[in-house]
Amino acid sequence: MTLETVSTSKSFGGMQGVYRHASEATGTDMTFAVYVPPHEPGTKLPVLWYLSGLTCTHQNVMDKGEYRRTAAEQGVIVVCPDTSPRGDDVADDEAYDFGKGAGFYVDATEAPWARHFRMYSYITQELPRVIADNFPADMNRQGITGHSMGGHGALTIALRNPGRFKSVSAFAPISAPMQCPWGEKALGGYLGTDRAAWARHDSVALIEGGARLDALLVDQGDADGFLSEQLKPELLRKACEKAGIPMILRLQAGYDHSYNFVSTFMGDHIEWHAKRLR
Amino acid sequence: MTLETVSTSKSFGGMQGVYRHASEATGTDMTFAVYVPPHEPGTKLPVLWYLSGLTCTHQNVMDKGEYRRTAAEQGVIVVCPDTSPRGDDVADDEAYDFGKGAGFYVDATEAPWARHFRMYSYITQELPRVIADNFPADMNRQGITGHSMGGHGALTIALRNPGRFKSVSAFAPISAPMQCPWGEKALGGYLGTDRAAWARHDSVALIEGGARLDALLVDQGDADGFLSEQLKPELLRKACEKAGIPMILRLQAGYDHSYNFVSTFMGDHIEWHAKRLR
Repeated sequence: MTLETVSTSKSFGGMQGVYRHASEATGTDMTFAVYVPPHEPGTKLPVLWYLSGLTCTHQNVMDKGEYRRTAAEQGVIVVCPDTSPRGDDVADDEAYDFGKGAGFYVDATEAPWARHFRMYSYITQELPRVIADNFPADMNRQGITGHSMGGHGALTIALRNPGRFKSVSAFAPISAPMQCPWGEKALGGYLGTDRAAWARHDSVALIEGGARLDALLVDQGDADGFLSEQLKPELLRKACEKAGIPMILRLQAGYDHSYNFVSTFMGDHIEWHAKRLR
Repeated sequence: MTLETVSTSKSFGGMQGVYRHASEATGTDMTFAVYVPPHEPGTKLPVLWYLSGLTCTHQNVMDKGEYRRTAAEQGVIVVCPDTSPRGDDVADDEAYDFGKGAGFYVDATEAPWARHFRMYSYITQELPRVIADNFPADMNRQGITGHSMGGHGALTIALRNPGRFKSVSAFAPISAPMQCPWGEKALGGYLGTDRAAWARHDSVALIEGGARLDALLVDQGDADGFLSEQLKPELLRKACEKAGIPMILRLQAGYDHSYNFVSTFMGDHIEWHAKRLR
């Protein structure tokens, strides 16, 4: 596997890089961003995965997420993948919430999506190997977070891979995709009509089925226009309560769904992860 | 004058807004961004102007500048104007360094630019009135900064308006536009062949002509690809030394010309200004 360096730029004493590689999982080139904080040569650093939301590439959080200051202070590598396969031969949909930019962190089984839309395998298997092989990453100390569709991705991937992530958080996650329009459309489109397949990618269903997390931090703006129809954090809270998962749900007064919300609380989340990854 | 609110979004406890108005100075609609930090109702806050560089609108620093955290902590309003007039009837040039996105903070005298490219009047006269009339701004406590072409703008505007700005800084400014290709092209294009007109928009020439600042903070990345040909901070340092202007010039090892550089040192600059604006 050859990793191409697209760009590097010093930031907060560390290095913000963008990289590209030919992905076996998706059958396309994939681009991702990695921030490596300042560190002593030879040391291995904890890794925080940040999964992005609908319409995003690796770049949105890199530009607007404001994670580098705290990541530098705390000595945490931050990995920001793309949200779908890309390229002219990749199937797409005109809508913003399906197809390119909307991979939903599943391995699609339905045509024409099954060929390239294999983001679950990409994020859980292939990209971790790339990170381990090319960066000073201690893969025994991983945390995961994400925003909106990426919050869904972070939660479901953590729930399905017990023990891998020592810390889990989310910003305004799609908490129960089986119970909202975005999720019903995406899971139905990528996985077909069998709702048992959907349940493997629904945080609430996974928790109800016995999956567990040690702890969970979720921030949610109360002026978020998607709150009641799409995000539904109360369903996640109820599932966590019933399962005995300690969940901190912070309803942030006046905040919307944008990166102004994410960046405001990014420092808190990185500190939450760093504390658990020491 | 009617101010149209394009968007508002809560961020770090304050409000990031984008606004549009019909400008008399430029004869076009102008868009700008203002961040108002959290504050007690009825209080007036100091104002920091941030002037952007080539190719930028108000939005680049709003997305990538990471100024809101420190502005919120320090209680400073941050105003981010556009870099040129915009619109289909505004003259333009194919190059990135002239015409739209490259107003250079001058009032053009040459055709076809003279009609709309009046950024000096816009930034120094019209927009301050808009800010004073529409935001909780204490106009007796203003500071100014900027990046690259905007650093040139900040320095020249401060030098030409003694007493108005209580604090001045710049990120990788074009220090002596009369002595670099970007500046020669822009000043010649907007102001014609009379170099005496250029000298009113050249920091080094203004200082040599007697203009003064109380103090100056400049950060400059030493891996900035524009450093030696376009930016030339040593010319500014020599002029300040000769004039007795206390200038702190920090050459930052490994940093380039991008917003990864600007955002890394933005907090330092806002603290520098806030200290002088208290």
